[in-house]
Amino acid sequence: MKNITIVGAGLAGSLLSVYLAKKNYSVNVYERRPDMRLSQSDAGKSINLALSTRGIYALKEVGIYDEIKKISIPMYGRMIHSVSNELMFQRYGKDDSEYINAVSRGELNRKLMNLAEKYPNVKIHFNQRCTDTDFINSEISFHDEITQEVSTVNPDAVIAADGATSAVRLEMMKIPRFNFSQEYENYGYKELIIPAGENGSFRMDKNALHIWPRGSFMLIALPNLDGSYTCTLFMAYDYSLGGKNSFEYIDTEDKLIEFFRSTFSDAFEMIPDLVDEYFTNPTGTLMTVKCYPWKAGKNTVLLGDSCHAIVPFFGQGMNAAFEDCVYLNECIGKYGADWDSVFSEFQILRKDNSDAIADLARENFVEMRDLVADRNFQLKKKIESELYKIYPDTFIPKYTMVTFMRIPYSLALGRGRIQEEILNELSDGISDVKDLDLKKADSLINMKLRKLELIT
Amino acid sequence: MKNITIVGAGLAGSLLSVYLAKKNYSVNVYERRPDMRLSQSDAGKSINLALSTRGIYALKEVGIYDEIKKISIPMYGRMIHSVSNELMFQRYGKDDSEYINAVSRGELNRKLMNLAEKYPNVKIHFNQRCTDTDFINSEISFHDEITQEVSTVNPDAVIAADGATSAVRLEMMKIPRFNFSQEYENYGYKELIIPAGENGSFRMDKNALHIWPRGSFMLIALPNLDGSYTCTLFMAYDYSLGGKNSFEYIDTEDKLIEFFRSTFSDAFEMIPDLVDEYFTNPTGTLMTVKCYPWKAGKNTVLLGDSCHAIVPFFGQGMNAAFEDCVYLNECIGKYGADWDSVFSEFQILRKDNSDAIADLARENFVEMRDLVADRNFQLKKKIESELYKIYPDTFIPKYTMVTFMRIPYSLALGRGRIQEEILNELSDGISDVKDLDLKKADSLINMKLRKLELIT
Repeated sequence: MKNITIVGAGLAGSLLSVYLAKKNYSVNVYERRPDMRLSQSDAGKSINLALSTRGIYALKEVGIYDEIKKISIPMYGRMIHSVSNELMFQRYGKDDSEYINAVSRGELNRKLMNLAEKYPNVKIHFNQRCTDTDFINSEISFHDEITQEVSTVNPDAVIAADGATSAVRLEMMKIPRFNFSQEYENYGYKELIIPAGENGSFRMDKNALHIWPRGSFMLIALPNLDGSYTCTLFMAYDYSLGGKNSFEYIDTEDKLIEFFRSTFSDAFEMIPDLVDEYFTNPTGTLMTVKCYPWKAGKNTVLLGDSCHAIVPFFGQGMNAAFEDCVYLNECIGKYGADWDSVFSEFQILRKDNSDAIADLARENFVEMRDLVADRNFQLKKKIESELYKIYPDTFIPKYTMVTFMRIPYSLALGRGRIQEEILNELSDGISDVKDLDLKKADSLINMKLRKLELIT
Repeated sequence: MKNITIVGAGLAGSLLSVYLAKKNYSVNVYERRPDMRLSQSDAGKSINLALSTRGIYALKEVGIYDEIKKISIPMYGRMIHSVSNELMFQRYGKDDSEYINAVSRGELNRKLMNLAEKYPNVKIHFNQRCTDTDFINSEISFHDEITQEVSTVNPDAVIAADGATSAVRLEMMKIPRFNFSQEYENYGYKELIIPAGENGSFRMDKNALHIWPRGSFMLIALPNLDGSYTCTLFMAYDYSLGGKNSFEYIDTEDKLIEFFRSTFSDAFEMIPDLVDEYFTNPTGTLMTVKCYPWKAGKNTVLLGDSCHAIVPFFGQGMNAAFEDCVYLNECIGKYGADWDSVFSEFQILRKDNSDAIADLARENFVEMRDLVADRNFQLKKKIESELYKIYPDTFIPKYTMVTFMRIPYSLALGRGRIQEEILNELSDGISDVKDLDLKKADSLINMKLRKLELIT
């Protein structure tokens, strides 16, 4: 039986081990951290994820979606909270059949590990820090953080799913012609909790992603199974960028309370431990990682965040990593254990699409924190949804292409940009979707979209 | 006396030590390699540099230009070699007062080290590999490659001039919010030698930079003091990009000889050891490095290639690093030993300009390998030089701004782009500079350039 080493038992590594187990490989997963199933605390990092079509497809392919569905909460749209506490619902899809799913990163990861370990040919090794790699001879060494011993393995292939700060990628930096970039946003984030109401009830609409868009910053909240919400405040680090709306400025209890009371008054009433959480939880960073090639030597490859970490604003980081598993699985189906060919084709198939979702995710930050509250944006959303009804195969909203379909991200990016031009032209000079010029729309769509590769 | 550690005794580190010695700092320079003055061989890396106005100014500021002038050869323009061995001279400046200077990297580095060591307060330590840095406590450790001992120093400030693969920068990668990118060209380079003629005579025009532009690849040659020329072949690595004009394809003696004979026939006759050099010398890589911030903690900063390595096509890598020394020196003049302020202002002053020269250098590769041989490009060059005569303070050729002036690179980039638009409009539809529409030129320059910040 061929032996595969996966570095990292995070979301991508755990799911990938299921894929490979089903193909009858002997799979050893090496994880730097202790087994997270032995402690339930996530300490200020209780990140919620939005599982959508690409991720769901990846789970279904190995028959484990039903298990994951049990721990996820459908969100049908954005619930926008204005400064004066008015609510406005913006649907994500065409109807209730299209939704994204709130799921806790920790819960999901634990479940995936359990599902993986049901296979006798999967073994997860914890507390194993990757210290060294020999890409030519495909040897890889791990330091046992408990026993302090170093072990070296020599598998048939190595797949590094060890996240945005990948140790394997760090070794690749030494290879000539390895292109790499890591770019931080000037914005950080802070997690806060809205606890459940009485008897585990939800204190806001359960089936929505709540947003408090405030121009240069925003608060969001996603529901948890226990009735609580995990909130995330996204804001500039520095006073020089965000002024009084910055982590640098808000450094006292008084400033914090004044800021929340005046800016997020409904949320403020629901976050009892605001002060403690704000000053205790770490301020998270937001980073985009790009690199190429992903393959080193003949049988080592990067996958997931290790080669394409993105910002969270399109809710696609995990979905993209899970989609990597689908594509890698297809490449193995085509080339078997010819890892050189498998990994070469895999990186070509995924690189442009990873770059595209990285760009889409950065652009969506502006949409979420600012545009969703804008009247012209709302009008364009209505026109978009009208055109989608009339041209269901041609004019598909960008959000739909990314979230509810599996067409390549790069195509979604390209078509999305053209559609944005069309929406700008059509919304110009009107204030209501009733006044939409359908003849002009038809002519623009014919001219700009029809000639493009068809989405099927 | 305040103690400063410089990492790297390359060109920038050596020159910087002179600047700091003159300000009465105690300067310790730690260099990873052995003392290059003890062996004269450069083994396939006998790179020539083009010293120009910015670099010269930096040398003059500390009174050592006269020493360097002795080892440099003026080059007044490009000598372009066509496939059929016709020569065409393209002047760099307005007349013989404007030129760039060929200088050997090794010779220059040795000379700078000698000049630095004349100061009793400068000490260069060789075989010292930087292994660790503590940016908070400003401690830095070096491994002595001879004795294998590790020493740790605790200077008042650390300036890392340790080149494109900087060890100090690698440590900075661990700091949150450190932005970094390294991007390789799909082209590599190979050094070849045209030996001197009889009695040390030059076999081509001595006072020119020779170019064999061939579209997707090129050969260049710079004169050495001993009558030889260092040639550099720039070409695609991969067959998939360059076809038969690629390092991948040209892998036998026969292919190499056929390639040189048909493509660079005059040079072919002058490179006796072509086969040996081509197959022995390493194929060099071409990389652009960008990062930010350059400062870590309060008293460590990057300088030169360690924070802005660029491709060599504008001949500005060394000049930009030397200009860093000038600006850093000015910041020290302003803030004294308040290193936090010195380094903060330094990085702000230099970052945009470093990005600009990185872009200019990449763009110039296309100009050198392809455009210089193009008739429309040559026409535009003539129009440019005509306009420069009429508007000497406003329409200054991009090459002149970058090479013969000290205006910020970012301004040169911005004005260069606008001028390129003007040249495109003015060259459209004419085939000779005699037909230049001066009224149109005047109106375009008034409209597009005058409103910009004036160059003084």
